[in-house]
Amino acid sequence: MRKPTIQDVARQAGVGVGTVSRVLNNHAAVRGATRETVLRAIADLDYTPNPHARRIAGGKSYTISVLLPVVTTEFYVRLLDGLESAFLEARYDVAIFPLLDRSRLERYLGSHTLAYQADGLVMATYNLTALLRERRLRTQQPTVLVDAHAEGVDCAYMDNVRGGRLAGEYAARLPGDLYAIWVETELDQLFTTRVFEERRAGFLEALAAAGRTVRAEYNASFDALAARNAAVTLLDAAEFPCTVFASADLLAGALLDEARSRGLEPGQDLRIIGFDDQPWAAARGLTTLHQPVEQMGFEAAGLLLTRLSGHRGPPRARRFEPRLIVRSTA
Amino acid sequence: MRKPTIQDVARQAGVGVGTVSRVLNNHAAVRGATRETVLRAIADLDYTPNPHARRIAGGKSYTISVLLPVVTTEFYVRLLDGLESAFLEARYDVAIFPLLDRSRLERYLGSHTLAYQADGLVMATYNLTALLRERRLRTQQPTVLVDAHAEGVDCAYMDNVRGGRLAGEYAARLPGDLYAIWVETELDQLFTTRVFEERRAGFLEALAAAGRTVRAEYNASFDALAARNAAVTLLDAAEFPCTVFASADLLAGALLDEARSRGLEPGQDLRIIGFDDQPWAAARGLTTLHQPVEQMGFEAAGLLLTRLSGHRGPPRARRFEPRLIVRSTA
Repeated sequence: MRKPTIQDVARQAGVGVGTVSRVLNNHAAVRGATRETVLRAIADLDYTPNPHARRIAGGKSYTISVLLPVVTTEFYVRLLDGLESAFLEARYDVAIFPLLDRSRLERYLGSHTLAYQADGLVMATYNLTALLRERRLRTQQPTVLVDAHAEGVDCAYMDNVRGGRLAGEYAARLPGDLYAIWVETELDQLFTTRVFEERRAGFLEALAAAGRTVRAEYNASFDALAARNAAVTLLDAAEFPCTVFASADLLAGALLDEARSRGLEPGQDLRIIGFDDQPWAAARGLTTLHQPVEQMGFEAAGLLLTRLSGHRGPPRARRFEPRLIVRSTA
Repeated sequence: MRKPTIQDVARQAGVGVGTVSRVLNNHAAVRGATRETVLRAIADLDYTPNPHARRIAGGKSYTISVLLPVVTTEFYVRLLDGLESAFLEARYDVAIFPLLDRSRLERYLGSHTLAYQADGLVMATYNLTALLRERRLRTQQPTVLVDAHAEGVDCAYMDNVRGGRLAGEYAARLPGDLYAIWVETELDQLFTTRVFEERRAGFLEALAAAGRTVRAEYNASFDALAARNAAVTLLDAAEFPCTVFASADLLAGALLDEARSRGLEPGQDLRIIGFDDQPWAAARGLTTLHQPVEQMGFEAAGLLLTRLSGHRGPPRARRFEPRLIVRSTA
């Protein structure tokens, strides 16, 4: 039996070949009933497009690559939610590439990965554009940074300095000594993000402006055990009442756990301010900085989509503002 | 200035060209100090491999595509964790393709997506192999199913019938009427998973064997609002004490919330058995079925990796067993 052609599909659906082609290419202009009719004709006829026809014809993959550190934390789950809602609406597929470790990141600094065969790139948290430039590699695709910012590239990010400052201004007015637990950023230049140092800078700046100082600072890498150990060390040394700023909710949560296990009353003996407003923060009464993560993702996707539609203007930076959410821990 | 060549890198690193090539190709045999030396030489010389050389030379992308419904639920976060630990160890990159909606899934039934340019495919929950076969498309890559099972393809899945049966055997011994809330599976054939109907089948089978019946059954789609509405309807109609089996923890959690807001005491007036053992289940005392999700992902990755290393045996099925975790709600 003769294999059905695109002409057969067009005839069956009662549309032009161009419309079928646009449906096959996810063209945004074909929607609703027409699209459904074409898809039904494709299914009825069991039509198989030439696998490579779309790429060859349009030179487009209709896919956006998202490069991010991991997919398995709350922050990235929310960020992906925001990105996806925009890309799905615009009929782009999304391919997510978790970098995870140094050797994998190294590979992404070469140009032979599937990621770079997409029509556009989203780079989350790690700004690989600078690294790629250093190595004189240049990605061909429009690129947007999210949760990171740099000159010369579209970006959507949160003002982490301001977040730190809001925490500092609030903490400065509370009684007792001030302590801080910072997220230890990796020494490895490849895996550095400025987010945590920006939070620290803002916090210390606000304290200085209020004439206050931090009595002691602690560091913990971004995992539950390290966070708990830092909490133990801090509470062994601290004098109460006191206030602790933890530059990530993960650290604040561990501190809450350790405090409760010692019979300390959060919000009285020990005031805690976190950063992130994780989904569990409300239930645990954590005072923290809220980040509009989904909106940041949605906006980043929007910036990239305008580039894909041909926008040629100068790089744009969209800065989002954190909000202090006061609950019962401080 | 002459661009550095692979020979220059080999000379600088004091290794053969073959070793440099193996490092560039993520070959598992080159590790540790040698790998580091080669990477340092690449960086020092600012060597840029021909972007397409690796693909052309090896015909491999060293990437595994993971097709899954969404990345933003706890289940898939855990599944990805398991998959990633195996693929990272084997030096494969992972590209994650969330299907999300029907039109995007339709596109993946065509063969022109980046996903199919990877060396291997993991399909989670939705078994696209049958759909692809129906449309006479056949993916070229070794494929493994995870959280789904089918003849003729490697798969790692959980025995959901057995999970339902364990819940049923336990519930049958509790006092009062029995109710159930089921996850409504989509009518759309493309998006059907057998997981929830299998849990239901096992539960009803165990009740029948114990000579008991369900007084009323309720349905909810897999979202928080629908779950809460089903909880309201159930509690409006139920007589206490009673036992409710919810075929997903999401539904059980909503039932717990609604029960508490009515002043009902879970574990006494109202016994609740969930399914999934979500991370929050322990903290809320939920009796539920535990799934070894990470292990399932790890095993699925292992099956695929053996195929990529040339294993040619018949399809293998790895079945994982759920465990009933009794806590305070039942």
